[in-house]
Amino acid sequence: MGDEESGRNSGESSRRTFLSIGAAVGGALLACSDSGDTPAGDSVKRTGKPPDEYGERSPFEKSVRKGSVSRYPEAGSTRTPLQDSHGIITPSSLHFERHHAGVPLIDPAEHRLLIHGLVERPLILTMDELKTFPSVSRIHFIECSGNSRGEWKPKKGATAQISHGMASCSEWTGVPLSVLLDEAGVKPEAAWLIAEGADACKMHRSLPLEKCRDDVIVAYGQNGEAIRPEQGYPLRLVAPGHEGNINVKWVRRLMLADQPAMGREETSKYTDVLADGKARQFSLTMESKSVITRPSGGQKLPGPGFVEITGLAWSGRGLIERVEVSTDNGATWTDATLQEPRHRIAFTRFRLPWTWDGTPTVILSRATDETGYVQPAVEALVEARGPNSDYHNNGIKSWKIAADGSVTHA
Amino acid sequence: MGDEESGRNSGESSRRTFLSIGAAVGGALLACSDSGDTPAGDSVKRTGKPPDEYGERSPFEKSVRKGSVSRYPEAGSTRTPLQDSHGIITPSSLHFERHHAGVPLIDPAEHRLLIHGLVERPLILTMDELKTFPSVSRIHFIECSGNSRGEWKPKKGATAQISHGMASCSEWTGVPLSVLLDEAGVKPEAAWLIAEGADACKMHRSLPLEKCRDDVIVAYGQNGEAIRPEQGYPLRLVAPGHEGNINVKWVRRLMLADQPAMGREETSKYTDVLADGKARQFSLTMESKSVITRPSGGQKLPGPGFVEITGLAWSGRGLIERVEVSTDNGATWTDATLQEPRHRIAFTRFRLPWTWDGTPTVILSRATDETGYVQPAVEALVEARGPNSDYHNNGIKSWKIAADGSVTHA
Repeated sequence: MGDEESGRNSGESSRRTFLSIGAAVGGALLACSDSGDTPAGDSVKRTGKPPDEYGERSPFEKSVRKGSVSRYPEAGSTRTPLQDSHGIITPSSLHFERHHAGVPLIDPAEHRLLIHGLVERPLILTMDELKTFPSVSRIHFIECSGNSRGEWKPKKGATAQISHGMASCSEWTGVPLSVLLDEAGVKPEAAWLIAEGADACKMHRSLPLEKCRDDVIVAYGQNGEAIRPEQGYPLRLVAPGHEGNINVKWVRRLMLADQPAMGREETSKYTDVLADGKARQFSLTMESKSVITRPSGGQKLPGPGFVEITGLAWSGRGLIERVEVSTDNGATWTDATLQEPRHRIAFTRFRLPWTWDGTPTVILSRATDETGYVQPAVEALVEARGPNSDYHNNGIKSWKIAADGSVTHA
Repeated sequence: MGDEESGRNSGESSRRTFLSIGAAVGGALLACSDSGDTPAGDSVKRTGKPPDEYGERSPFEKSVRKGSVSRYPEAGSTRTPLQDSHGIITPSSLHFERHHAGVPLIDPAEHRLLIHGLVERPLILTMDELKTFPSVSRIHFIECSGNSRGEWKPKKGATAQISHGMASCSEWTGVPLSVLLDEAGVKPEAAWLIAEGADACKMHRSLPLEKCRDDVIVAYGQNGEAIRPEQGYPLRLVAPGHEGNINVKWVRRLMLADQPAMGREETSKYTDVLADGKARQFSLTMESKSVITRPSGGQKLPGPGFVEITGLAWSGRGLIERVEVSTDNGATWTDATLQEPRHRIAFTRFRLPWTWDGTPTVILSRATDETGYVQPAVEALVEARGPNSDYHNNGIKSWKIAADGSVTHA
């Protein structure tokens, strides 16, 4: 190639190759689609697989969600492999899970959304009826308030998946809840909305009405297609920036009330007992947080030299304004570059070029959101809330790099 | 629910439900995971499926890529079902395909990228070596220049998938090509880059060097995970805003040259013969374009009343600044709302509330990009380029709504 003459030749040769495909199709296809692992380099010698209707990832890709072993798997969870993530979108197939009674199989043609309680006009909507209302699409993270729960302990998460994997980010599409509330006509005495799912434990949570009028979405779409079963198919509440459990999946009922339901998931669970014995209740907002995903626990640097430090930052209060990275265990901090355009209440990818000199060190990241709130050290959280905290650990995460390049939790 | 007392009860009752799950697990699981379609409403009566490692969409979702029947399917294509799309992200499983020799199965551990020709230091990079360079993530559309090819004809595409489905949008992650060119050291006489894929036809295309230095990405990530096999796993060129064929998949070779290769895919193909017999060559940029995805061909309005008109707009030259919609066959136009934040050279979702009065009409959309270029009528394109055009049809698309609400091409 490179000059017009040889250019023609290369044109000819690729045309010959092209025509030869026809004759070779049968054998080539067999050879290709039957062999689990075509010897590399051979790809140019045989025709590949034809197009298909709904694609799958490469069989060479092994990154998966992992959960803690549970006596009742249906009440278990899985975590997103953040150490393998790129950009800000989490593949729907790898979005973290936390179920209380398993993933129900729901026929969208039979699903209904009931809006009742303190309203002028109770509504029962089919999926088709719901979709006739104006919709919005927004990229938002969802984080379980139990994410990083293990980070309170001296022995902390060995990988970013274990320590921070109960956070994921998708483009959600649905009807603004405010539109449906206007349709139903909320009575003046209403102050809370109680959302109930169609799973076997009828998981339900209470949301302040102001939040519902602000930016909550009744979502039917995720990353461009129907919401996934593990994420609430065919319908879930998306309450941007509020703890994951509030984003009720398989939502079938929205009841307007003058006070919260005080159900199991907001009394005995999803609250933290403070030093004085009182519980933090309705601690709904997920505060500013970040984690370095590469290099991170379980990975290994090939040796001294250039490495791009990259990770994710997010805040339930809006835009991430700044992410600082330290490569000397917190002695000095450098501003990382943020992926633009940033989306509010969404993952923000940060990157910082770094040259590792081969000496052992500790790397950390800390995020600042548009309210000026700076991600604190775990010690500061314990100082403020006492020793009993379980949920809402947004403390700074550190990774230790050993002389051999191996990365572990500091 | 609704007052504290009954709140406690609902707490109790959901706790009972929860505890009963344990005992019921075996049977419930069998009942749930074995039945292909649990009767609706029953979801609250049985435990659902436990979490899994890599999720799939609901069995109730049937939207798929569809291609034109081809004698050699490996040289065929499939189209994205845009009429079912939400937001701006195309699910990787539904990203359009156009292959010239099928989808090769490539082991990333064996894959190499060769950079040679007019460079100071030829490079051969493994995937691991490539990933040590700084990366970027950007949301970009890719459109086959043959998209909307059928729209030149009197009988036009019956659905948005047929007429515009060879365009899709993903978040791409990879190394800026400019970084690799600096590493190799481009010689002053170099003016073009010739990219070659590892498929059986060694598909190759020529890119102007200025474009390569500007915003081209050597991409290994798509929508948060490894790029999909049909999109070039493990490596593809992403040349934002340039015709799809230039975004060489399974890329294995980048040769710097003083002129283009003049290969098959840029001489006998991907050019248009003008009225004077000369061919438009290196017509690489995809101009401003849009399509209404709902209501669109094949769909049916339930009857007169409110409907949200929504669709997608994109431009290879940067941001979409404006999308106008007409509901009276072009007599008057109204600005639609654009999904924010907008990304440059990416799908932009537009929405316009509308009340259909039940009389037959024609709806259209036209996009304007940041350069001020306004999407033209197909007739204007024929006027400018003559009757022989095949590629690069970015003309305005119209949908006819009949009295019974059925939507067809106008």
